[in-house]
Amino acid sequence: MSYPVGTQGVVVQNIERADPDVIEGLGACGVATVHEAQGRKGLLASYMRPIYSGARLAASAVTISAPPCDNWMLHVAIEQISEGDILVLAPTSPSEAGYFGDLLATSAQSRGCRGLIIDAGVRDVRDLTEMGFPVWSKAVFAQGTIKETLGSVNVPVVCADELVNPGDVIVADDDGVCVVRREEAAAVLKKAHAREANETDKRARFEAGELGLDIYDMRGRLAEKGLKYV
Amino acid sequence: MSYPVGTQGVVVQNIERADPDVIEGLGACGVATVHEAQGRKGLLASYMRPIYSGARLAASAVTISAPPCDNWMLHVAIEQISEGDILVLAPTSPSEAGYFGDLLATSAQSRGCRGLIIDAGVRDVRDLTEMGFPVWSKAVFAQGTIKETLGSVNVPVVCADELVNPGDVIVADDDGVCVVRREEAAAVLKKAHAREANETDKRARFEAGELGLDIYDMRGRLAEKGLKYV
Amino acid sequence: MSYPVGTQGVVVQNIERADPDVIEGLGACGVATVHEAQGRKGLLASYMRPIYSGARLAASAVTISAPPCDNWMLHVAIEQISEGDILVLAPTSPSEAGYFGDLLATSAQSRGCRGLIIDAGVRDVRDLTEMGFPVWSKAVFAQGTIKETLGSVNVPVVCADELVNPGDVIVADDDGVCVVRREEAAAVLKKAHAREANETDKRARFEAGELGLDIYDMRGRLAEKGLKYV
Amino acid sequence: MSYPVGTQGVVVQNIERADPDVIEGLGACGVATVHEAQGRKGLLASYMRPIYSGARLAASAVTISAPPCDNWMLHVAIEQISEGDILVLAPTSPSEAGYFGDLLATSAQSRGCRGLIIDAGVRDVRDLTEMGFPVWSKAVFAQGTIKETLGSVNVPVVCADELVNPGDVIVADDDGVCVVRREEAAAVLKKAHAREANETDKRARFEAGELGLDIYDMRGRLAEKGLKYV
Amino acid sequence: MSYPVGTQGVVVQNIERADPDVIEGLGACGVATVHEAQGRKGLLASYMRPIYSGARLAASAVTISAPPCDNWMLHVAIEQISEGDILVLAPTSPSEAGYFGDLLATSAQSRGCRGLIIDAGVRDVRDLTEMGFPVWSKAVFAQGTIKETLGSVNVPVVCADELVNPGDVIVADDDGVCVVRREEAAAVLKKAHAREANETDKRARFEAGELGLDIYDMRGRLAEKGLKYV
Amino acid sequence: MSYPVGTQGVVVQNIERADPDVIEGLGACGVATVHEAQGRKGLLASYMRPIYSGARLAASAVTISAPPCDNWMLHVAIEQISEGDILVLAPTSPSEAGYFGDLLATSAQSRGCRGLIIDAGVRDVRDLTEMGFPVWSKAVFAQGTIKETLGSVNVPVVCADELVNPGDVIVADDDGVCVVRREEAAAVLKKAHAREANETDKRARFEAGELGLDIYDMRGRLAEKGLKYV
Repeated sequence: MSYPVGTQGVVVQNIERADPDVIEGLGACGVATVHEAQGRKGLLASYMRPIYSGARLAASAVTISAPPCDNWMLHVAIEQISEGDILVLAPTSPSEAGYFGDLLATSAQSRGCRGLIIDAGVRDVRDLTEMGFPVWSKAVFAQGTIKETLGSVNVPVVCADELVNPGDVIVADDDGVCVVRREEAAAVLKKAHAREANETDKRARFEAGELGLDIYDMRGRLAEKGLKYV
Repeated sequence: MSYPVGTQGVVVQNIERADPDVIEGLGACGVATVHEAQGRKGLLASYMRPIYSGARLAASAVTISAPPCDNWMLHVAIEQISEGDILVLAPTSPSEAGYFGDLLATSAQSRGCRGLIIDAGVRDVRDLTEMGFPVWSKAVFAQGTIKETLGSVNVPVVCADELVNPGDVIVADDDGVCVVRREEAAAVLKKAHAREANETDKRARFEAGELGLDIYDMRGRLAEKGLKYV
Repeated sequence: MSYPVGTQGVVVQNIERADPDVIEGLGACGVATVHEAQGRKGLLASYMRPIYSGARLAASAVTISAPPCDNWMLHVAIEQISEGDILVLAPTSPSEAGYFGDLLATSAQSRGCRGLIIDAGVRDVRDLTEMGFPVWSKAVFAQGTIKETLGSVNVPVVCADELVNPGDVIVADDDGVCVVRREEAAAVLKKAHAREANETDKRARFEAGELGLDIYDMRGRLAEKGLKYV
Repeated sequence: MSYPVGTQGVVVQNIERADPDVIEGLGACGVATVHEAQGRKGLLASYMRPIYSGARLAASAVTISAPPCDNWMLHVAIEQISEGDILVLAPTSPSEAGYFGDLLATSAQSRGCRGLIIDAGVRDVRDLTEMGFPVWSKAVFAQGTIKETLGSVNVPVVCADELVNPGDVIVADDDGVCVVRREEAAAVLKKAHAREANETDKRARFEAGELGLDIYDMRGRLAEKGLKYV
Repeated sequence: MSYPVGTQGVVVQNIERADPDVIEGLGACGVATVHEAQGRKGLLASYMRPIYSGARLAASAVTISAPPCDNWMLHVAIEQISEGDILVLAPTSPSEAGYFGDLLATSAQSRGCRGLIIDAGVRDVRDLTEMGFPVWSKAVFAQGTIKETLGSVNVPVVCADELVNPGDVIVADDDGVCVVRREEAAAVLKKAHAREANETDKRARFEAGELGLDIYDMRGRLAEKGLKYV
Repeated sequence: MSYPVGTQGVVVQNIERADPDVIEGLGACGVATVHEAQGRKGLLASYMRPIYSGARLAASAVTISAPPCDNWMLHVAIEQISEGDILVLAPTSPSEAGYFGDLLATSAQSRGCRGLIIDAGVRDVRDLTEMGFPVWSKAVFAQGTIKETLGSVNVPVVCADELVNPGDVIVADDDGVCVVRREEAAAVLKKAHAREANETDKRARFEAGELGLDIYDMRGRLAEKGLKYV
């Protein structure tokens, strides 16, 4: 059963997850390839940036709907983590407060959490970097939060312009963050692999100096549209 | 004696500074801890970002109120620097011009300056990085400035949403920038140390897999507020 | 002959370029020095940021006017690249779509391209970093583009607030991006060298602790304007 | 049956709508009241502003998922309009192009459309104002669009940070835009009316000079939290 | 006695105010004139916009330091209002939540309040417009707030980049918002009147077609700087 | 003869202007129509907004390249105005200072100036509104400027992302601002009239309830691309 976006005061304890091998495979493909493979959908807004370069992963979303400037639900969510999950937090009103720092990261990491996607702020980024705990966030900001109002865990959320359901696959790297529906993950991986195979071939031709104009046979259509060489 | 924010054409030569050991101590605690220790106040806006990662310091503020796109007062301010100071520049009207580059950094560093906080632009960031001269700024921008209009040195300024008095302690790291009032610095350091001790203990429990829900005894209050597990 | 800004559907095949030694020389001077040397003009907007730190270059512009979210013209432009060129792409309407990734970079690099300046998005930034292919962009974003509408290659474009003509010299480093008119490049280089010589001398005096107030003889004029030391 | 967010190339022709009287009632309550009545959820981002002041309405959403800078699906969507509907357009990638102008408004209005919510640009705003066709948009921008790529009509979309399903109720006025789930509309209206009744009573007491501190009996709790009057 | 910026949990009940005739006079001069008359200082950030055009006033500041997304202190502040005051709210962390709507406006107006300056959001703007209750804000947003955490009333605050003390004079019109220190208000008014007299004379000469170049005798200095007419 | 963008210290006194009847005609067509008629180019950035609604005009550009926060060149430019001109000011570095207010407007208006396009700030907007002097600007901000550094008058400038030459035609209304090259003005007007005639016909069909799908014969191409009705 699924709860609607915006449900308040609910923790869904049992969620389905995609096949771990599929998740692993999507992580190896990276954001740009996965985004293309699933028909150019699922990208979170471009303001979601990693706190350090080089992290690249896929993981299963544990979602958090949190009130603005209130990080209480993070503690609730961490109990729901299984090995290989990633936390995805969306505030119910825009906020750049620092919901998350090194203590919460220590707790999450001890339970197998792979990282955090947060449409708000994060702090202790030097510690998080040393711990190898990757975060993609809207802001780095030390502003503290309170623990007064309920949100929800594992209900669908809208995070940085995209709907994320609990159990959806999050792919994240230096290009940003992409969400893949749980039910589509295996099919998307297949298409991503096909795309990669195709790109390997293309890359070799490009390296050899061949032009995209020829590889993709574009000259005719360009002429037809009226392109003039002068 | 103190001059009001917005005073023009004044250089205050003798300012009080906090105890160097207290300043040092605050720098070791970092921004997030100090901000919490002093009751969640004093954070500069989140758009103030370091030009390189990993710098972490505390220092005593020499403040500069500068006209937009005019960096004349920086030369005046550098003469007022003592070993262990940091420059804090606020333009009187929004600007992202590059007020500061490697020559001024050389001059400031030769007089013991620890860095720069600037609610405007900075340039020569590769040189500054090589020199190990940290800057937290609103922009990196090579746009030149003029030297035509007076500002002030060592009067209170509003920098990136926060009031900074000359002699206040600036704490800065990868999380951003925090200001601590000179008179409160020692007390804040004590609280920061207490907080760190407490966090060390908590961190060990989190590493062992204990949950925040239990460490902070949150389950009762969550239930009372109506949280449902489904 | 020159085409006006906004010309659509034209590829100019033969463009003039500045002397390679002059270009090389400008790259060694860096953005801040070149910008000053040419009278403080030519800087692209400060939101143009490098995808990795430390790149520093000058190159001859091959310009691209592209429709929003349509990267067809990039394929056309790559055929026009000579050794030592840099691509400069301006969308005809604001876009942060990811026009450029590792395949196009492979193609461009194989033809001697030095990098990309793009007032829009770029993707595959980890690959580009590994390839040592520098990009200065408005955004990092994996969003795909289409190939449906003509733009132009090697017509003048407005890129991030500055006019860039084909064959103009682009200087780019961690401070941002600056454009130098082809016809002015040699003269600007001379002034930049003079400026550098002067700065070397100044730097030594600054390192020795001398003040800008004295080096530039500012005290009299400051007093005249009414600066008061208290 | 419902299609997932991000479905491409589908037009859902038969959608359920809320009771017209309920819709009408929600419009009379206004955005702020409805938002509170449904538990403070459903607000679109604050950058969604009306093109003229004073419009206030509720209507049933016909949703459009459109490619960036491509308004083809608007023509498809207009055929699906019933009297009392409102168009809700979300681009699949950020865009401020002018998807909609006076001709499309004439067409939509002739079929009973009440207005447009668009997370992108709109143009011909003087004509739209004269026609009394209200629009809430991210930008006013005359930039033209193309008709090349398919999107979808009446699939769920994420518009300005909120999920909107076809048939959901849109409430919009000078405060912005709020979405109410179709199935919850009647219940929300009841709560909104209760809230209004309560507010009428409160307003009279406020007008008479009574204080919120007393009306809401806040003094005890403030004292308990430690508020000091000095 | 004065409390520092950032003091939490304090309500200062007796504050000094400027002479009502001086306040009235400043309001008649308007923001641009007052800003110039006091030496070009005191302007709040340009993002502070009026909810409707045409309001023009000056009033005595009752300041509010409020937690993010928490409007409890507004109720506390309204009790401190005297006839002719204006509320000035600064959140302790950035927020665009709707702290203020028609009920609070009714309450404030019944006690003689002239308006609101808020570095956050406001809602019910249609009602406020009908009531003639002017607001200058960062955002219009219906998002609700909570009442959980203490702030302060009548301590100095930093609002939209400017320090505002309780009892300072706020001047606001379609150009934005300017703060005048209480102790300087009478002197600033005198200078503003002098400026206005001077402008009346100048305006007549401009209307008659005389040029600023001649009225201000600029031609010599322009030539000296090297301006060339071609 | 034409001067390059970025020329400093030059006033070009004799510029060519388009035929006044052509200019008048373009103004009657409005921004959206003219933009389409000239092939979707020439739009200034969408952040350029009118200070009041309802103004609609076309006029001949007198361009101003001005240093940041320095409005000296406005006085120089006003002498160059002929009846029917409009001022177009681009700062050489980003600025939102208030370069222009009611005195300058009085002077400009007395010489036949129709309005101002400024990629920076404007002030005294209430006065300008009463005078019927329209301004399209990036900001409304009372911040004063200085008169210290030379710029140029009637050289090409880049204003809000578009190149504007002296004598180009500026079309502006509630949709924003569009520039038409002087030499293309007559041809663009012809196309704009053709477009208007065509729109009148289309508008009648839309009013009668006919669909764009049929008017533009889109159904076949949509089916071919794979659009499914469900």
